[in-house]
Amino acid sequence: MKHVLSILVDNQPGVLRRVTGLFSRRGYNIDSLSVGETENPLYSRITVAVTGDDLIIDQISKQVGKLVDTVEVVALPPETSIYREIALIKVTATSATRADLAGIVGIFRGSIIDVAPSSVTVEITGGKSKIDAFIDLMRPYGIVEVARTGLTALPRGANESEK
Amino acid sequence: MKHVLSILVDNQPGVLRRVTGLFSRRGYNIDSLSVGETENPLYSRITVAVTGDDLIIDQISKQVGKLVDTVEVVALPPETSIYREIALIKVTATSATRADLAGIVGIFRGSIIDVAPSSVTVEITGGKSKIDAFIDLMRPYGIVEVARTGLTALPRGANESEK
Repeated sequence: MKHVLSILVDNQPGVLRRVTGLFSRRGYNIDSLSVGETENPLYSRITVAVTGDDLIIDQISKQVGKLVDTVEVVALPPETSIYREIALIKVTATSATRADLAGIVGIFRGSIIDVAPSSVTVEITGGKSKIDAFIDLMRPYGIVEVARTGLTALPRGANESEK
Repeated sequence: MKHVLSILVDNQPGVLRRVTGLFSRRGYNIDSLSVGETENPLYSRITVAVTGDDLIIDQISKQVGKLVDTVEVVALPPETSIYREIALIKVTATSATRADLAGIVGIFRGSIIDVAPSSVTVEITGGKSKIDAFIDLMRPYGIVEVARTGLTALPRGANESEK
């Protein structure tokens, strides 16, 4: 099972190492992780996507909750949450293929954010499956490199995850 | 000085803990960090934004490069790189303020991705300063919560950072 945990922590050195240590000690490989600021400079939000047994993830999540720097841990199940990720994809492009590429980018509501003589760089946002699909479509053109943020998430609707 | 490092690593448990440990051991607080997949499932890319002394960051970057799981470390200076981040912002909204909000979201080329009776959730992508500016504009309406991915980055133009 895939799990997404949203962890509100004190903005302190070492917090990230302690949180990621709890996963790696169990041999769990994190699928993606993003840490960003919140509206309050005292806190950061860590969003972790991890695949694993429900029971063990629940245990790890409780251990994360016990760290002194943790303000709150919330599980964000797909049914009631919004997931978003951004990917930058640099693709080989010549004058012959650039129009083709631009068409696909348009369908995915992405943008071409940089053009070089032999490549273009595309920005795509969305859920993981949309980005995966776009990257697969780019493979025949020649992918130079890809950078993805990993997902960030919020509960849908009127629910709050933050204290 | 603000530094952005793009670190290509083996997709293994524990790598993230080892990389973040090198920063926290020096007392460096990471401003943002994102880990995502690349086009090759064997590798992940970690993008770290950190503020600090050029010399020390250079030392840490060399230490990261010596970890067995590290394939490559590249510094991405602002002049020659593209930075992007995504933020999800849930803002209090009533029927009286919703149109106002939608206007601001349009100017920032964001999208409203969820609407509840008393709130809307907005997706904004861009550089850090654009997102900071948008969040500041939302404060008077009442921010419920914010989740940001932290930035991801690629070198501009024909340069490659990946092996």
